[in-house]
Amino acid sequence: MEETSPEALQDLAHLIRIHSIESTSASKSGHPTTCSSCCEILSVLFFRVMRYNKNCPKDPSNDRFVLSKGHAAPALYACWVELGVITKEELLKLRHIDSDLEGHPTPRLKFIDVGTGSLGQGLAIACGMAHVGKYVDRAKFRVYCVLGDGECAEGSVWESVAFAVQYNLNNLCVVIDVNRLGQTGETMYGHCLYQYEKRLESYGFNCLCVDGHDICELIEAFQCAEQTKDRPTCIIAKTFKGKYFEGIENKPGWHGKPLGDKTKEIVASIKCRIKACGKPEFNVPKPCSTVCPVDLCNIKLCPPPDYKKGEMVATRTAYGTALAKLGKSNNRVVAFDADVSNSTFSEYIKKDLPDNFVECYIAEQNMVGVAVGAACRNRVCAFASTFAAFLTRAFDQIRMAAISKSNINLCGSHCGISIGHDGPSQMGLEDIAMFRTIPDCTVFYPSDAVSAERAVQLAANTKGVCYIRTTRSPTAVIHCNTMEFQVGRAVIVQKSPCDVALVIAAGITMEETMEANKKLCCDGIRTRIMDLFTIKPIDKEAIVCNAKECGCKILVIEDHYPEGGMGEAVLAAVADQKGIIVKIAAVEGLPKSGETKALLKRFRIDSTSIYDHVTKLVKGC
Amino acid sequence: MEETSPEALQDLAHLIRIHSIESTSASKSGHPTTCSSCCEILSVLFFRVMRYNKNCPKDPSNDRFVLSKGHAAPALYACWVELGVITKEELLKLRHIDSDLEGHPTPRLKFIDVGTGSLGQGLAIACGMAHVGKYVDRAKFRVYCVLGDGECAEGSVWESVAFAVQYNLNNLCVVIDVNRLGQTGETMYGHCLYQYEKRLESYGFNCLCVDGHDICELIEAFQCAEQTKDRPTCIIAKTFKGKYFEGIENKPGWHGKPLGDKTKEIVASIKCRIKACGKPEFNVPKPCSTVCPVDLCNIKLCPPPDYKKGEMVATRTAYGTALAKLGKSNNRVVAFDADVSNSTFSEYIKKDLPDNFVECYIAEQNMVGVAVGAACRNRVCAFASTFAAFLTRAFDQIRMAAISKSNINLCGSHCGISIGHDGPSQMGLEDIAMFRTIPDCTVFYPSDAVSAERAVQLAANTKGVCYIRTTRSPTAVIHCNTMEFQVGRAVIVQKSPCDVALVIAAGITMEETMEANKKLCCDGIRTRIMDLFTIKPIDKEAIVCNAKECGCKILVIEDHYPEGGMGEAVLAAVADQKGIIVKIAAVEGLPKSGETKALLKRFRIDSTSIYDHVTKLVKGC
Repeated sequence: MEETSPEALQDLAHLIRIHSIESTSASKSGHPTTCSSCCEILSVLFFRVMRYNKNCPKDPSNDRFVLSKGHAAPALYACWVELGVITKEELLKLRHIDSDLEGHPTPRLKFIDVGTGSLGQGLAIACGMAHVGKYVDRAKFRVYCVLGDGECAEGSVWESVAFAVQYNLNNLCVVIDVNRLGQTGETMYGHCLYQYEKRLESYGFNCLCVDGHDICELIEAFQCAEQTKDRPTCIIAKTFKGKYFEGIENKPGWHGKPLGDKTKEIVASIKCRIKACGKPEFNVPKPCSTVCPVDLCNIKLCPPPDYKKGEMVATRTAYGTALAKLGKSNNRVVAFDADVSNSTFSEYIKKDLPDNFVECYIAEQNMVGVAVGAACRNRVCAFASTFAAFLTRAFDQIRMAAISKSNINLCGSHCGISIGHDGPSQMGLEDIAMFRTIPDCTVFYPSDAVSAERAVQLAANTKGVCYIRTTRSPTAVIHCNTMEFQVGRAVIVQKSPCDVALVIAAGITMEETMEANKKLCCDGIRTRIMDLFTIKPIDKEAIVCNAKECGCKILVIEDHYPEGGMGEAVLAAVADQKGIIVKIAAVEGLPKSGETKALLKRFRIDSTSIYDHVTKLVKGC
Repeated sequence: MEETSPEALQDLAHLIRIHSIESTSASKSGHPTTCSSCCEILSVLFFRVMRYNKNCPKDPSNDRFVLSKGHAAPALYACWVELGVITKEELLKLRHIDSDLEGHPTPRLKFIDVGTGSLGQGLAIACGMAHVGKYVDRAKFRVYCVLGDGECAEGSVWESVAFAVQYNLNNLCVVIDVNRLGQTGETMYGHCLYQYEKRLESYGFNCLCVDGHDICELIEAFQCAEQTKDRPTCIIAKTFKGKYFEGIENKPGWHGKPLGDKTKEIVASIKCRIKACGKPEFNVPKPCSTVCPVDLCNIKLCPPPDYKKGEMVATRTAYGTALAKLGKSNNRVVAFDADVSNSTFSEYIKKDLPDNFVECYIAEQNMVGVAVGAACRNRVCAFASTFAAFLTRAFDQIRMAAISKSNINLCGSHCGISIGHDGPSQMGLEDIAMFRTIPDCTVFYPSDAVSAERAVQLAANTKGVCYIRTTRSPTAVIHCNTMEFQVGRAVIVQKSPCDVALVIAAGITMEETMEANKKLCCDGIRTRIMDLFTIKPIDKEAIVCNAKECGCKILVIEDHYPEGGMGEAVLAAVADQKGIIVKIAAVEGLPKSGETKALLKRFRIDSTSIYDHVTKLVKGC
């Protein structure tokens, strides 16, 4: 099969340029100038370099492409117009509410793997894809990622650069589209390619500086990248924002502006540059090897949990135990950790199955991005863990993971003040609030080792982002090993026909609640104790029904700030019910270092305080 | 005054080492090995290099010190023991609930500016201090920041490195304590100092590689740093974790472990190394110039808001207008932005007062850290802005800002689906939830230009982290220019004696509510409309009182995900009230690109939907 000629590639670049202009003019919004700087890069990639089956864009054998500079989406869509996968008419509905061609790429489209548009995130995802390709699939597909120069100011990019070198991702080729101009003015380094080159080289990348509008230079650079086996390559392309837009090219003030009444004239001038009569001829090379689909369905927890009731086991330990079991039952279960695997206990899978563990060092943003990339096209079942507090570092990546419809699983250990001595910087007290905002996220908060193991199993088999909140301190096993857990299904831990309040607790506060319960029973006060298991989705029906059976009084006790936590989730569940009173006992104000028991007492979520809260609630104080 | 001799500095380093061991052994937790690698660095800094008044640690004339590797806190505390500011007895209460000597440094202590412990954040703060010193105070104080090698994996560090070079912060001296070992194993680069050197040099830093346990090499390096005027300096120090701990030094497996029963023996062996009889003699040099306190009280909005009722003005525009006014009334008001100043409208202060604007490029984590550093010791009133969605990038920094008791003000523009075409990646739909979790944070959500201007003024004069949520689209002015706004005080926008529901809206949904109201009025349905102004603190009294006057029915409409937003804040406010029903209309599920009006309609927060929600609520459907 003949390779697409440079002339045809240049024509195709101009067609991409024209589509970008026309679609953004039609939608009266978007980034034609940003598109224009990368048209030659995309043309060479899509019509000569990348090997893929255009009729099956998510074929696992295909080369991968990530447009990190997501605001150039129309240029990417334009490639798929030329490939015949979408029509020009569809493209002209860009950004319309009934079109899947959104302002920034999202996987509503069959040829998009991940959402981009929050800058500086694409490279981590590309690294995840490349890592899987090289070390899990051991396949020949290559991964291409186009970044803008402005987004290189994001530290997350450099976390990924370091990762790519650390794991010698020679199947990864990055392109930086150095068009000099950011939104408000010149980027930090303008057109000085050397700044990027020396930096990337200092990390260990192979660098190639090219004229990003020169088709032949680009072809040569991509060939060189493919031949470089000892490290990943970055092509640093000097380009111009608004290239070939007369009066606009390389001028500030044109970021995110459609061409309006200049559209016709500029399109006409670009059309004049097209050499071919009719459509330019091209050939897309086929994948050079076949990568088979893998089975990620029904990943089993084998053997099942095996604990004794009352046994003291930290849920973080159970997380590690379960993860290692899943890894043994399906070799596509892969764990990622940020240098705390001996705290989160992901070290168990690392010890048992070293190939199923990826050390991401202290770089949580990149870790989450890599996990998202690894999980693409269902190549692996990814679990990433660190302290719950440090997942806040990756909130933007987690938010984007939902837009990417990613199936990643995240585990945050060391939640709440119960971690004790280390102090507030290490205490995850906002993680439930954070994950509850994530669309379609399943938020597990297991109270004991049995439910923690089941949470890990369910997360592996549940679509969308899953979050598992684990506790540092050991807590008593309260559930039978044979208990069946379901997403969105609460479990009643204790009940009697004369319960006067419903107490909802989890993790360390379940432990304290069970303790408080002994004293309450002595005083003749019977409470019903509920373990929600998942905070999102929440078992509204069970909450309302049990509350009504318990005098319409609910006490929620949580080792989390009151805002956005378990208590507010319960409030939302009963918002449309008249007459149910909810009391939330949570961590109010800034905590500090101290012994676990002393902290729980000071912040009034220990057993004695729970006793007080219940008695006051029951007495109506 | 004689400089402290190298011999005395070495003795002091050993004393710091001993204090670190003994205090962590007393608390049975902490990081003696991490402390040990930086004892010589701290000794040379605190007893010879840094110029400060030890009796007034927050004197603005003093050199600044930031311990980015916060887990080495005991070593830092030990310096202040030797300086006579705290006692050894106090140090031995390390990490105790009644001690301010926490596991990681926090400003509960008078000699600590900011909380650290979430790694990779200290350098941004140091950059903020250095930027203010050089460009605002134009003072001679220098800024020192000690980083661990493990935390250099965090991208945020490299955002700050780039910032320091961009603004030629030659008053900044960074030290990387390269002790080779992370928590779970060797760092990415182990003891290869060259990896750090070539990388930092590629960014433009002056680099000096030293033996971090050699007092004379350290003295010389700090002198060289001070003499280097054309760029910031980084001292890359080769050190050993657990230095001088026999059998432990440079060995893995000792991260975060007190020495237990080895304590006595190791302390004794280190004591043998001390040469002086009695306390080593030292002199701390005084600051070389006097920096005066500045007045940040009662920053005025002058002239006051001047709008016509019904005039269409975006609250983001009003934000910019107010910020420029504040800057003119107090030249210590400084704005920071991440390359979107023409969207957030912080460009207004940039145009009027270019010296009061700091471009931080697309690096939100560093921007927030720099703002925190700038605001330290009340040197400036800092406002940092970007899209609300992208503040999620800095959640960890914002969380730490609260621990630092910082007074920074943050503005997130482009909230919600109402931004329209750009799509989900650009829509801030979790920002209220995020900021509500921040202890002592004030969360403003102004509905019109008048209240937006007042929010900016109040933020400038309110302690703690403040957040202002602004809207992209213009909304009608609904408040009088003379209206007095207060934190925690809601405003009734419309009321009648026969209101049948309380409608709580803000920003774009206030606009839609006012529209819906017209039709409701025509149908004879009178609603009371409330503008909360601040979501945190929330005006509980006004909500409960007005709800009771409106048939105990509340409708909250918000352009935010339901979780953790305005609706749940209202639910929490009425949780202890029997009989109040709350309906929340928020953005359910993942949004997409589209026209603003079409999106508001699809997600059922437009005027027509509000009409429906109200009628259903009133009819009890």
